[in-house]
Amino acid sequence: MKGLEETATRMVWPHAEIVESLAKLRQISPLTHCITNIVVTNFTANVLLAVGASPAMIVTIEEVDEFVRIAQALLINVGTVTRHDAEVMLKAAATAQEARTPWVLDPVAAGVLEFRTKIVTELIRRKPAVIRGNASEILSVAGAVGRAKGVDSTASSLEALPVASALATDTGAVVAISGEVDYITDGETIMSVPGGDEIMTRVTGTGCALGALIAAFLPVTRTPLMAATAASAIFAAAGERAARESRGPGSFSAAFLDQLSFLPDKQALPSLAGSTTC
Amino acid sequence: MKGLEETATRMVWPHAEIVESLAKLRQISPLTHCITNIVVTNFTANVLLAVGASPAMIVTIEEVDEFVRIAQALLINVGTVTRHDAEVMLKAAATAQEARTPWVLDPVAAGVLEFRTKIVTELIRRKPAVIRGNASEILSVAGAVGRAKGVDSTASSLEALPVASALATDTGAVVAISGEVDYITDGETIMSVPGGDEIMTRVTGTGCALGALIAAFLPVTRTPLMAATAASAIFAAAGERAARESRGPGSFSAAFLDQLSFLPDKQALPSLAGSTTC
Amino acid sequence: MKGLEETATRMVWPHAEIVESLAKLRQISPLTHCITNIVVTNFTANVLLAVGASPAMIVTIEEVDEFVRIAQALLINVGTVTRHDAEVMLKAAATAQEARTPWVLDPVAAGVLEFRTKIVTELIRRKPAVIRGNASEILSVAGAVGRAKGVDSTASSLEALPVASALATDTGAVVAISGEVDYITDGETIMSVPGGDEIMTRVTGTGCALGALIAAFLPVTRTPLMAATAASAIFAAAGERAARESRGPGSFSAAFLDQLSFLPDKQALPSLAGSTTC
Repeated sequence: MKGLEETATRMVWPHAEIVESLAKLRQISPLTHCITNIVVTNFTANVLLAVGASPAMIVTIEEVDEFVRIAQALLINVGTVTRHDAEVMLKAAATAQEARTPWVLDPVAAGVLEFRTKIVTELIRRKPAVIRGNASEILSVAGAVGRAKGVDSTASSLEALPVASALATDTGAVVAISGEVDYITDGETIMSVPGGDEIMTRVTGTGCALGALIAAFLPVTRTPLMAATAASAIFAAAGERAARESRGPGSFSAAFLDQLSFLPDKQALPSLAGSTTC
Repeated sequence: MKGLEETATRMVWPHAEIVESLAKLRQISPLTHCITNIVVTNFTANVLLAVGASPAMIVTIEEVDEFVRIAQALLINVGTVTRHDAEVMLKAAATAQEARTPWVLDPVAAGVLEFRTKIVTELIRRKPAVIRGNASEILSVAGAVGRAKGVDSTASSLEALPVASALATDTGAVVAISGEVDYITDGETIMSVPGGDEIMTRVTGTGCALGALIAAFLPVTRTPLMAATAASAIFAAAGERAARESRGPGSFSAAFLDQLSFLPDKQALPSLAGSTTC
Repeated sequence: MKGLEETATRMVWPHAEIVESLAKLRQISPLTHCITNIVVTNFTANVLLAVGASPAMIVTIEEVDEFVRIAQALLINVGTVTRHDAEVMLKAAATAQEARTPWVLDPVAAGVLEFRTKIVTELIRRKPAVIRGNASEILSVAGAVGRAKGVDSTASSLEALPVASALATDTGAVVAISGEVDYITDGETIMSVPGGDEIMTRVTGTGCALGALIAAFLPVTRTPLMAATAASAIFAAAGERAARESRGPGSFSAAFLDQLSFLPDKQALPSLAGSTTC
């Protein structure tokens, strides 16, 4: 926990840094290895391509070690994990840790189902750079790794923030809580990203694709905190714009991918966001 | 088979009940467990979200028992069934029967391929509330469970209706035949749902997503007959409207999801539909 | 290698033949068996439906032999191949060879990963009618089957053409290289198909879906060379038109499917394409 002075130095919303990171992402087009769930593979790939990254879904045990070493970032999302997938994910995470490929963990429905909760707990030992989930997933993960808070599926992202901060401190991972406002913390600094639109909850895979985009930003930002912040800000801005120009969830999806490809201009990024310290 | 009097009492198309069921669906947002094929997972989830249900694709043997007990409805679709999937499906169906989670069976391509036809036959023993398919799938399923009629891939939904009715009586399941007109029967009452548009056959997964939506309606309707009727009517209405405002199958998909989220207003539901008895 | 006279006789771009093949495809709607990757199954099915073919994704070892005998064409795409998938693919290819079901091989990321490169090498022994890939995949495949050229991920389709031609001669397969200009060769004749739009590289699965469409054309064209040419020309035309009427990758996808369903009119096909001999 830091004093007011340091807080003050970080209170400026990092528009310029996000815009610069996005430009860098487009320039190097990070090869982003996604081991994700079967519902969202297509949408995730299209989101990454729209923003300017290079997605690759390599999902078999024979190839995963080799590919994690080639990739510039990795996403592991347990949304539809099977036993074979779990083996692949654990191998990928171990290789990522060894090869220093930065990676994001998306613990979908952790806490609801025992099998995946155990896998998530094992995965966290392999040092993800970022853990991204909604409030109840973050509370569940914290509980599973020892910060028992129980599961509260109705918790808001703000209510989960103290636990998220402790989870960040315990694991060394940046924790990103998605919600009406996204909160992102490394245990010291908290970034808040408002924006987006309620309709994003009516399109499958928006949260999962955000996890992938955070991964894609890891190689082009100074810190995982900034990677998660940049990805969230871009999602919020594109989501808001797309919602304004669409009628329902079908037209929203297309407009969202379009807007992701148009960004950035500085005006588009959420203007009310800010940061503070724990 | 019932006489004219009873027929007459059911000839009024249940607009009000469908509208009410949809309102209830939106209110409770039934957790709908989908074990479906790899081609349509994303579209199925988006259809359920657009209408207002909560989709969840839990597909591994370690989690399926636990999740069927949590879910309010279940869909099993054998479109791309593998041996592992078959094990998951049989487990899910057994648990659903035991835990009284109402469920829908979609016997994609039953009759064409022996492996899945056997799985479908085993699944039916676990008492699905609804079996949904096109005419040739329904004829095949009826054949496989003993009402041998052979497979006729050119049969219309109307031609399959007598067999569907017998299948309903034999199995206790409501049988829903999709086609230019959808017919839905519990062996006594027949509901007919016209509408929709030919372009729906040019978008993959419309039939499969209908099966999922029927499942989502099971917890919010009086009977499985009404669940299948409500889902079919909503699909027909949204399909007609979306077809009018789109140019081809790509713009149709987006418009269809939009329209599913706009419904209902009573005027939109198919006006020519009715019911009769076998 | 042929002389100028024969070249001249083939220099006319086969508008009429492509248009005729497309009409035939729409008439018989070839049952096109796709064993493809999990990222693109939905898009591939929608592309085939939009053009007028009948897609079917049958992916389990128990059914693949039976279905390859029913199908009119087969696509094998190794994009997310697992060990089980590899078994299915090898079985499918063996049955296709025996049953004379014409088939297309899409060697996604061959050369990058050892496991799939071996599978691709084995698959080629089963005599695909067409091998479709980008320049670096074609160079890799040629290397793996003995024409060692190394991998050059920056090679243009034109630079890969001599190797593609040798690969065609060695394997008996038509080789289709996708790029800014598509080149298609049987080792004697070279067809070049310009057109399309850069935005197609920002939508996942356009290349993979092209492989599927080539497969769908195999039963309705005189030669595999013509099947690949027709599919590429239709993709290029639909891609150009869709790009003109869309804003970004999201609206492009919808417009592309729409345009695929509108084609052909002769004017729409790429006018600058031509053919020559090696």
